[in-house]
Amino acid sequence: MSADEELKRHNLYREYNAIEVVKIEQDHCEVKADIQPQFLNHGGYVHGGFLFTIADCVSGTTARTDGREYVTQSAHINFIRNVQSGRVYATGSIISRGRKIVIVQVLVRAEDGMLLANVTVNMFCMGGKTNV
Amino acid sequence: MSADEELKRHNLYREYNAIEVVKIEQDHCEVKADIQPQFLNHGGYVHGGFLFTIADCVSGTTARTDGREYVTQSAHINFIRNVQSGRVYATGSIISRGRKIVIVQVLVRAEDGMLLANVTVNMFCMGGKTNV
Amino acid sequence: MSADEELKRHNLYREYNAIEVVKIEQDHCEVKADIQPQFLNHGGYVHGGFLFTIADCVSGTTARTDGREYVTQSAHINFIRNVQSGRVYATGSIISRGRKIVIVQVLVRAEDGMLLANVTVNMFCMGGKTNV
Amino acid sequence: MSADEELKRHNLYREYNAIEVVKIEQDHCEVKADIQPQFLNHGGYVHGGFLFTIADCVSGTTARTDGREYVTQSAHINFIRNVQSGRVYATGSIISRGRKIVIVQVLVRAEDGMLLANVTVNMFCMGGKTNV
Repeated sequence: MSADEELKRHNLYREYNAIEVVKIEQDHCEVKADIQPQFLNHGGYVHGGFLFTIADCVSGTTARTDGREYVTQSAHINFIRNVQSGRVYATGSIISRGRKIVIVQVLVRAEDGMLLANVTVNMFCMGGKTNV
Repeated sequence: MSADEELKRHNLYREYNAIEVVKIEQDHCEVKADIQPQFLNHGGYVHGGFLFTIADCVSGTTARTDGREYVTQSAHINFIRNVQSGRVYATGSIISRGRKIVIVQVLVRAEDGMLLANVTVNMFCMGGKTNV
Repeated sequence: MSADEELKRHNLYREYNAIEVVKIEQDHCEVKADIQPQFLNHGGYVHGGFLFTIADCVSGTTARTDGREYVTQSAHINFIRNVQSGRVYATGSIISRGRKIVIVQVLVRAEDGMLLANVTVNMFCMGGKTNV
Repeated sequence: MSADEELKRHNLYREYNAIEVVKIEQDHCEVKADIQPQFLNHGGYVHGGFLFTIADCVSGTTARTDGREYVTQSAHINFIRNVQSGRVYATGSIISRGRKIVIVQVLVRAEDGMLLANVTVNMFCMGGKTNV
């Protein structure tokens, strides 16, 4: 999948969570989102489900930069710190590309660079022709 | 926290994801959500971020049945199968209650009982008086 | 693989860690080990690597009860409590059997039943004819 | 704990697995081990338990470079490739240092640099005076 196709592709839940692609490079991508009140938990901090969602989105975009199609197979997330407002960024970097499994490391940060979560995502390849 | 207090407490992201509490018992809870179009990914299946979110919600509710307050520290999720519509259920059961860390096992199922995801969630106790 | 074949098969690291099969039933197995001084860490408690090893062993044995061959793809372990001597037991139970991926839940316990670790293991099928 | 104290400290299971410290720098450490026949699984490849053990060892050494004492709380490991002989190296790098929780990323490699496993380890601080 080309960066253009990736950007044009509709993903309703990504849009529902106001997540936008910032950068698509081979094996390294970035997305961002402005925190909205509906993304908060009962304590007024960003919900863990939202932080996972932004990580999952950038992970898929990063995996697909080889031109193939992927689904998330499993993920492990550590919640480190949290914020109540502003913008969050998530970057995905490839740790390993196998024939079937791609492992992506994701870091989610606040706009001041503070680390909010680190996530390891295993993506499973559904096929397609690699462009790498 | 009593079941009543749990039910009345506002959690904006839980409401944004249409997640409702079905059952609150000591160390065992259930939530549900009707799949809406905005919860789907580009392939028309429920987004992994949504499945994580419903698991995180039931995990917190289950941890708090001891009357104390918790935040999610880390989680590991396996995505097993997926659906495009209908209702999903998530059940949380306590694997271990320590002084500080509670481990919750969550199973997310489709309305026909098919297992969609299994999740292990580590919750960190923020204090409060236990009622157990 | 039959229970007999499983029991006869040599696994040098399993033997090096004194791990013995206790029970092989369809989708549910148990192994045990007597703690030896060389299994301890600097604090005199069982080393986390040993607890992972016994979990990994029972996970493989449990996955293979369908007659097919598996390797461990990934695992998530929580260390809950620890002991300094005696015997430890690990039980494996199938959470999900897919075409390629089997998910096994493992509980590691001390001989008094105290939970030492809970582990989720993803096993990847290398082929073979299923007997289920 | 100083690098000298770390090196002199006995850890029976680390020694039983022939794991030796290669490098101790602030927040970044390396260990190595020569593969011995007893570290292999039934297929003749390094056992997953051994790969986890070497990762857990370097993780503890890395966490303790702040002078405090730690135990492993949880870990997530992906097994990527495997070898049958030679030497393996594991490097630990700090992702995040909190008041109580330190997150360490570990990469396990064969002697030709091939990635065998990536591991995220959460270490829990047991106290001690920080030297950072």
